[in-house]
Order: sequence, then structure tokens, then C-alpha cells
Amino acid sequence: MSYSPLLVRLIDALRCMPGIGQKSAQRIAFHLLERDREGATAMSAAISEAMAGIGHCHRCRMFSEHELCSICSASGRDATQLCVVESPADVMAVEDATGYRGMYFVLMGHLSPLDGIGPEELGLSALEQRIRDESISEMIIATNPTVEGDATAHYLADMAGKHNVAASRIAHGVPLGGELEYVDGGTLSHAFYGRRAVD
Amino acid sequence: MSYSPLLVRLIDALRCMPGIGQKSAQRIAFHLLERDREGATAMSAAISEAMAGIGHCHRCRMFSEHELCSICSASGRDATQLCVVESPADVMAVEDATGYRGMYFVLMGHLSPLDGIGPEELGLSALEQRIRDESISEMIIATNPTVEGDATAHYLADMAGKHNVAASRIAHGVPLGGELEYVDGGTLSHAFYGRRAVD
Repeated sequence: MSYSPLLVRLIDALRCMPGIGQKSAQRIAFHLLERDREGATAMSAAISEAMAGIGHCHRCRMFSEHELCSICSASGRDATQLCVVESPADVMAVEDATGYRGMYFVLMGHLSPLDGIGPEELGLSALEQRIRDESISEMIIATNPTVEGDATAHYLADMAGKHNVAASRIAHGVPLGGELEYVDGGTLSHAFYGRRAVD
Repeated sequence: MSYSPLLVRLIDALRCMPGIGQKSAQRIAFHLLERDREGATAMSAAISEAMAGIGHCHRCRMFSEHELCSICSASGRDATQLCVVESPADVMAVEDATGYRGMYFVLMGHLSPLDGIGPEELGLSALEQRIRDESISEMIIATNPTVEGDATAHYLADMAGKHNVAASRIAHGVPLGGELEYVDGGTLSHAFYGRRAVD
């Protein structure tokens, strides 16, 4: 049985989104067609304009439609602190959750020698250039607590050390609201050995 | 903190999809921008073309970009059977799961007097016209097993009776693979009173 070709194409196309399989794509397609054609048309325009217009900030590599993103071009941010993250989504997470007012550098990935991603592929020379040129006093490393994120963090700390910039890494441990009983062993062990004196 | 306006607009626009909240919209936006700009551009085109091009079949009201949908215009389907469903997605479900080779009529909703949706709002006169004009011998009612779906089924059965067309309703009961223990009381009670003699 063949449905309307446009409908089949719509359902197929919706599957390029992460976490959207055949069933969800059908549900979304029918919802948009039945109840929200206006929203869907606006979404279509927003997607194509975003894909065409959004590039990367030349300084921190965050998504931006201008040469410099809104953080890099903002006045009043602390240029002595540089937070290094793996992806643009991490910038958003740090901005939304913390009171951090320094600058960022987005790696757009992590070191992964097995996949052929070394310091050059990550463009770490641009980061080194910034450390050399700008008056950065602390590099806050916020890569993910994974094997690759850890390796990347070590590499970045070494780089900071070479240029006499203090390096710190965000704390890993039991998440707030988490219960010890349900926290995985690796995290608990990390939290245990990383215990801090109570003031 | 203000992000790139195009990015904010993209995330906002993605939320018009059912089941997609702020977090999922962010995840989808970043995924598309980082890993699948081509797919996203194709999706944008598919959405806008679908919204502009897909209307309803003039006969059964299924989604179609032509006056008659592919089912209504197909040769070799059994025009004596008419399956009445609430939504276009139901047509797809019946087509995909069953060997049904008859015709359809899509209500685009159900009777719901409290919301001001009566037989006129559902356009049931078009259905009555089909029953009068075509050589339909059985109406298979496949509305949802909800209060409104039940009321709609009764109304449809009455209409079929008036025109000497046999009416049947798809069976409701314990789903295949379901365990009695976990089936809700209403369904189990329905299945119990609707028991059938074993041949």
C-alpha cells in the first residue's frame, strides 16, 4: 500500500532527528498536518534559516550567525577565565545553570586517537593562540567525565601548564538529590577518593 | 544571557511537535546543526511541501495531494466494505496491520457534544451520501474505545441500519501478548462479557 508520496517523504525526513523513529515520525507528521500546519510551516522556515545562517563564532566556536557570538562580543565578561567544553550544548548548560561570567572555548569534540582525532583535528592551536595572546589566568576544563573527555582534560591541563595558566577541572561526584544506593560504582568511588575536608 | 537569535528561534519552533519540550528541542537543534545540516535542510523542504501540498481526499478524507487518495483511486479494492475511523493515522494502522482491502471514511474526530462537535461538524452527511450512492454492504466501525468513540459508533450503527447496511465494530478485549494480571479492569470486564464460544 502506498500512501501520499509527500506524506511518506515527510515521515522519512522527520527521522533525521535524534530519538525519532518510524512511529514517532508518523505521530509528528499526523499531528502537524491535522492540528498545526501554521506551526509546521514556521518550523520549516526556522530550520532552513538556521541551517543556512548559523555558523561558528571565530573566537570560541560557539554557534553564532555573526563573526563573534553574543558571549565573546559582550562587554563586562571576565576575560581572565576561559572555560573549555566539548560542544555548544555544554556552553548553554553552563550558562543556564551557573553564574559563570568568563569566556568559553568549544572543542567541537574530544581527543580520540582511535578515530583519528588528535590535537590538530580539534584545532587546539587556536586555543593555544588564545592562551598566548589573551590575559587568561585560569582555564576551567569542563570536558565530559568519559575516557576521551579525561584524556582531553589531561592534554588541556598540560597545555595550560606550559603557558603558566592555572588549570582546574569541574568536580565530579554524587549528583545533588542523588541517593548513594543508586549511584553507579565508578561515580561513588570517584566521589569517595575526591572527598574534601569539611570547613 | 541571549544566544544566537536564529538558534533561539529554531529551538522554539521545534517545540510545536508533540512530545518535544525545551530540552528535547535543544538536543534536536544541536544535533542538526552539528551533525546533520543536510538532513535538516531536506526535512525543512519536506515539511513545507507537505503542509502546502497535502489536502484531504474528497471521498474518504484521508490525507492526499490529489483529489482522490491512493486507496480510493486504486483498482481492485472491495467497494462493498467501508471502514470508518477517527483519524488518518488510523487508516495507516489498519492498512499496515490487517489484510483489509475495502474502502475507508475518515471522520477527522468524533462526536463530542460538550465541545460542540455534532454530526454536522463531523460532516457525516458526506458519509450518509456515500452509503446511499455506493453499493456498500458492510460498515466496519473502528472508532476508538473511548466514551466519545463509543457514542460515535452508536450513531454510525444507527445510520447504517437506516440504510439497510450491516454494521460491525472491531473487537475490544485483552490485547495479544497481554497478561490478564496487568490488563486494566475495564478491558478485562469487556473481554469477559464479550466472550465467544470456542468452535
